[in-house]
Order: sequence, then C-alpha cells, then structure tokens
Amino acid sequence: MEIIERIEDLRRIVRRIRREDKIIGLVPTMGALHEGHVSLIRLAASSNDFTVVSIFVNPTQFGPAEDFERYPRSLDPDLEKSRSTGVDLVFAPTADEMYPSGFGTYTEVEGLTQMLEGASRPGHFRGVAMIVLKLFNLVEPHRAYFGLKDYQQLKVIQKMVRDLSLDIEIVPGPTVREPDGLAMSSRNAYLEPRERQAAAALFRALQEAKARAEAGESDAESIRKAAEDVLRAEPLADIDYVAVVDPETLQPVGQVRGPALVALAVRIGSVRLIDSAVISNEQ
Amino acid sequence: MEIIERIEDLRRIVRRIRREDKIIGLVPTMGALHEGHVSLIRLAASSNDFTVVSIFVNPTQFGPAEDFERYPRSLDPDLEKSRSTGVDLVFAPTADEMYPSGFGTYTEVEGLTQMLEGASRPGHFRGVAMIVLKLFNLVEPHRAYFGLKDYQQLKVIQKMVRDLSLDIEIVPGPTVREPDGLAMSSRNAYLEPRERQAAAALFRALQEAKARAEAGESDAESIRKAAEDVLRAEPLADIDYVAVVDPETLQPVGQVRGPALVALAVRIGSVRLIDSAVISNEQ
Repeated sequence: MEIIERIEDLRRIVRRIRREDKIIGLVPTMGALHEGHVSLIRLAASSNDFTVVSIFVNPTQFGPAEDFERYPRSLDPDLEKSRSTGVDLVFAPTADEMYPSGFGTYTEVEGLTQMLEGASRPGHFRGVAMIVLKLFNLVEPHRAYFGLKDYQQLKVIQKMVRDLSLDIEIVPGPTVREPDGLAMSSRNAYLEPRERQAAAALFRALQEAKARAEAGESDAESIRKAAEDVLRAEPLADIDYVAVVDPETLQPVGQVRGPALVALAVRIGSVRLIDSAVISNEQ
Repeated sequence: MEIIERIEDLRRIVRRIRREDKIIGLVPTMGALHEGHVSLIRLAASSNDFTVVSIFVNPTQFGPAEDFERYPRSLDPDLEKSRSTGVDLVFAPTADEMYPSGFGTYTEVEGLTQMLEGASRPGHFRGVAMIVLKLFNLVEPHRAYFGLKDYQQLKVIQKMVRDLSLDIEIVPGPTVREPDGLAMSSRNAYLEPRERQAAAALFRALQEAKARAEAGESDAESIRKAAEDVLRAEPLADIDYVAVVDPETLQPVGQVRGPALVALAVRIGSVRLIDSAVISNEQ
C-alpha cells in the first residue's frame, strides 16, 4: 500500500494507473476510520482494480465555532485499517498541500444545501462539494463511495456530479450501527460514557418514526412529532432539528406516501450527531 | 470532423480517444467564430492529437439585461471554419442538454471576480467558471485554449484549474486585431458602420497608455487618465471602466513598476466592448 502526501506524487501514480486501464475506486474520508468507513472500503476494494482512500480533515467545511481543531486524528490506526482492508493507496495531504496560498474556489450546489445541515452549518456544503470535487480531479476515480449516514452530503455530491457532468459513479454505502443502533461516526469518540448511552436515542427516534409510518400513519407532522418525543425523553439530548422530507428534494413533506426521509441532528453534551432513515407507509 | 450534440455521444468518443492515449486540446467558444478563435484553434491543432471546439452560447453567464438573445449564432460558417482549420470534433450542445431540469451547481472563484467585468456583470464569472469546468469534465482535455482578449476570464480559469487541481494546461492565445486595432470579438458584428469606426478608440486608448508607460510615466492614475481621455474624445464611446491593475491580482496599482494591465470596457451604441493590454515602464 502506498502512502502519499504530495499532489505531485499522487498525480504521477494516477496517470500510470489510468494508462494501465485500471478501474479506480475512491473512498474520501476525514480519517478516524470506523466500521462505517471500513464497509465502504470493502465495497470499493471488491469492485475496482485500484482502491484509494483519502484522509483529510478539511478545514473549509467546518464553521468557525465548530470542532475542526479537536476533530479526532489517528493516522497510524487508519493506515493499519486501510492496509488490512485491501487499500492500494492512501492519500493523506496536509492542509497547505490542498490549500496553497491564495486559494479561493468554491462549489455551490443550490437547492439541496439550504436546509437541514446546510441551515445549521452555513458554508458547510460549499466546502464539502469543493473538496470532493478537488479529490475527484486528483484521484480521477471511476467510482466514489459515500455513506448513507451523511444522507444530505450524498445527495449534494450526486447532484454536483450530474450538474457538472463528471464521469464518476457515486456508490452509496449503508449506515453501519453499534449494537444499540447508534450510527458509527468519528465524533462518537468524543462522547462521555453517560452521553454514549444517551446517544442511542437518535436511533430509537428513527425507529419510532419508521414504526408509525409502517403502522399506516401518513401525516408527516405526527411522525416527526413522535420521533421528537423520543428525543425529548432523553435529558442529555438537545435537539437541533427533526424533519420529515422528500428523499430527493429534501423539502418537508406534508403527507408520507411512498418513501420519505426522517433526518435529525442532536447535540449530546458538546457533541453534535446526525442520523437519518428512509421510512415508508407503503406496506 | 465529427459534429456532436449529445453528452452521451461525446463521452463515448472521449473515452475512446483517451484509451488511445491521444492528447486532447479544447477550444471552448460561444461560436460566431472569428480570426481570434481561428488562431486559438490553429494553436490547438498544431500541438494536440485531437482538437475539440465547443460551441455553446452559455445562458448562465449573461445577466438578465444582457445580450444573450441577440448574441450572434452562425453554426454553419462556424463548422466550415472548424473543418478547414483541422478540428477533429465540434461539440455543439443545446441548452437543455447542458442544463437538465433541476440544474443548480456553480463555481465561485473568489478574489479575481469582484472587479472589472465581475463588478459590471454580477454573476458572469460563476457562469463562466462553471460551464468551462463542465466542458473540461466532458471533453477531458490535456490542454485548453483561451484568448488574452478576455484577460480576466483567462485569470479566473487559471485560478480555478490550480485551486481545483485540474490536470489541464491552460494555454493563452494572443489578441487578434483588425487593421485599425479593434480586437476581434463576436460582438463587433453588432456595430453600425459609424460605431465600427468609433470602436477603434479602445485600441488607441491602450496604445496611449502604453506609450506613456514606455516614456517613463509610473503614476498609474496619470496613465489611466491618458487612456480615458482618448476614449472621452470619441463621442460615441460611453465608458464603463478604465483601470490600471496588477496583471495577477487584478487589484488597482498606484505605481507602474514592471508589468501592469490596462483594462477597459466601453459601450459603443448598444454594444459593450472590452479590451486590455499589458504595459510596462521597464525599458
């Protein structure tokens, strides 16, 4: 497995791999790899000739009051996990390498970035879309892998790829969960034991929404409220949003007919967690 | 020469050409090809294995009050000029092909887009940068050619390529001029005979600025004023801006030491024309 920090070195290797007509799969990450990442990497390694994992904690997708500084970094274990999962190349650049002096180009994906995470984290998605685009330009993958846990991010990337006519297949991977249902996230590492227990409320809230829809409830506000009530019952949970939206447009729906997305963001102590699930009352 | 309207067809050809390890050169245009375009195409055809000209009058780079509707279109003569200049493929998509329903991704290049054309034409460069990026993604060129006449556009594209790590060489081509110095532009076709004569004032203004600098003048405002006075002497010329700026940052300079850019935009009748020249008092 090659470990590359410099754009110049990456470019040389990518050109060679491309010339050999190999199919390249990319899993973009911010490191602190967990089972969710590992499942995406396995997916990539199983269907491409050359699997690249990028590890880069991207400063431009964090707001000034957010957790960029303390975001978990664990390069050595990340490399070990990558190696043992069949990765061919890890690209782990510095911020200076990715953002040379005078940098100032951003990608705005309109329509999908004003709500949910975009409303709570202004500027987040322009940083995400830009860095993913830059990684695509550097790695030139045929396929790129994104977890469904960051559902809105996945939709934003899919839209960017379609709008900009990038010749890349975006492959979603399922959310991987702890035994109590908590979605795997690098930020889970911040949780104190008591908070860790409380964090399971997110999954229970999604389960409640799902159960209501499957029991035939079609009023989106009733479903939303049921999920919210589960979170309110957890004293450590400070709700940012609970929303029932169209899975494609991310706009709120009034009635749940066919699939809808329940999306939530909750602060547990100082840790902001997100999760989502597609529900449906078509049974 | 192949003439392609559909993204799907273009993609198939590009994949084949890339697989043959051929070097692709792209000349992006809005059609109404003139000698300036032809010189760029010649440059591209002389140094690449496969030369692509795109012809697309891009609606998103025109403001609501601008000349999108009446912008000159002349596909048949454009194809003839392309064929006789050694073009291998013309990509001439419809607006529906480039902007499918729900389109909404834009590229913001900060720092170089607020001044000059960016100040006069808000939103212009986000449309330009995005459509060029999309054409790059579609054509996958090794080199792309842009005229120095649209100097700020060239700088914006160069910055975007650097910031987004696109593996594309941007090749500038010199401004081609009519015998009286008027820069070739598709918009020249709008000019009435009397206006056409008046339009030569833009070049005379640049020449005046150049002469002042070469005579040893280093005060940027004196140089700027001298160029402006030439334009003011032409009754049909309605000045938008005359600026003396740093050729890299496009910020106004106080003193001209080494190279500086004189940039101007002038309305002649209903036609808005731009031109620019690099001046220097280092003799």
